[in-house]
Amino acid sequence: MRQSLHTLTIETKTRGLIEITREVLRWTATESVASGLLTIYCRHTSASLLIQENADPDVQTDLQNYFEEIAPEDPERYVHGIEGPDDMPAHIRTALTQTSLSIPVIDGKPALGTWQGIYLFEHRAKPHRREIVLHLIGD
Amino acid sequence: MRQSLHTLTIETKTRGLIEITREVLRWTATESVASGLLTIYCRHTSASLLIQENADPDVQTDLQNYFEEIAPEDPERYVHGIEGPDDMPAHIRTALTQTSLSIPVIDGKPALGTWQGIYLFEHRAKPHRREIVLHLIGD
Amino acid sequence: MRQSLHTLTIETKTRGLIEITREVLRWTATESVASGLLTIYCRHTSASLLIQENADPDVQTDLQNYFEEIAPEDPERYVHGIEGPDDMPAHIRTALTQTSLSIPVIDGKPALGTWQGIYLFEHRAKPHRREIVLHLIGD
Repeated sequence: MRQSLHTLTIETKTRGLIEITREVLRWTATESVASGLLTIYCRHTSASLLIQENADPDVQTDLQNYFEEIAPEDPERYVHGIEGPDDMPAHIRTALTQTSLSIPVIDGKPALGTWQGIYLFEHRAKPHRREIVLHLIGD
Repeated sequence: MRQSLHTLTIETKTRGLIEITREVLRWTATESVASGLLTIYCRHTSASLLIQENADPDVQTDLQNYFEEIAPEDPERYVHGIEGPDDMPAHIRTALTQTSLSIPVIDGKPALGTWQGIYLFEHRAKPHRREIVLHLIGD
Repeated sequence: MRQSLHTLTIETKTRGLIEITREVLRWTATESVASGLLTIYCRHTSASLLIQENADPDVQTDLQNYFEEIAPEDPERYVHGIEGPDDMPAHIRTALTQTSLSIPVIDGKPALGTWQGIYLFEHRAKPHRREIVLHLIGD
């Protein structure tokens, strides 16, 4: 049994879903673990993680619209406003999605379903540098 | 330290919470791991996982109603519609719940609380064949 | 590779976010694991886990208000009412947040981002005794 750690750095431009499946699969492949567990961890509170359909890009548009609707950028709703009108909605959208994901590894690959992609969900309007920590354990 | 992997296949009939606690506990018991970590992973983007109360079935009814209300099947709200009116709400309901769950194993059993059950949350109207991957590591 | 388990017991007073970062870091530090994976598990269905900003306490106020708004204590909305008007909203708020969290451990510490704190999110009005199971694996 062995383990390894890696940090992915993703430069985001604005709100939205950024697919990181390829980066995650590429690193996992270099680690030569046949069976194990992959954990993906987002080191932020205004960006989060999501596993979602990666076939039709309309799904990403609808998800973005949905979260804008249920956690709107409306300063009158929130007490916390010092980091800008998009900050508190970003914290709420993060709370409603994921900070960590765990995916079993089978035959050297994360056991993603046919239509599953791994996404970083950026909730801030301006560009940010996001760190995603990957942990792999197995043999 | 050792690990094992298993895939549960669940045939769903329609929307709703399907308890899989018994299936998960049964497999875990056969693996004879006294202490460790169990990970449950759903290989789909229109069905998800949830740990919820398994005492009063009304809780499941209310959860189903709640998610139908906050992510309604209303084609006018969504761009993505090619897989049917229940598909985009299914992706949203998946985003709001879990794709993976991790449960410590103590004395050979997942450390579920007294009232906790593990559920597959089916979000599609028609029957589907769902794959849940289980990963256990420990000794 | 080795692992350890620990249970934190938290006495809550009423609804709200209770930071448990210090308790989690303190236990992790005693285990002397340089690299690994920490899993935090909540053994309840009316309290949950969240990683959120721990700088401005207004964020916690806004999160509490938000979840009260989207899953209100309104008995007419729910079938399940036998455990009090705050019980079904508590189950919904738990479903929308986390029951388990996994955090990679780097250089002996969970890889939390600069502003990240670990919170127990109590959803019941009256005091409760909550059990949080910690699992650490690594070397």
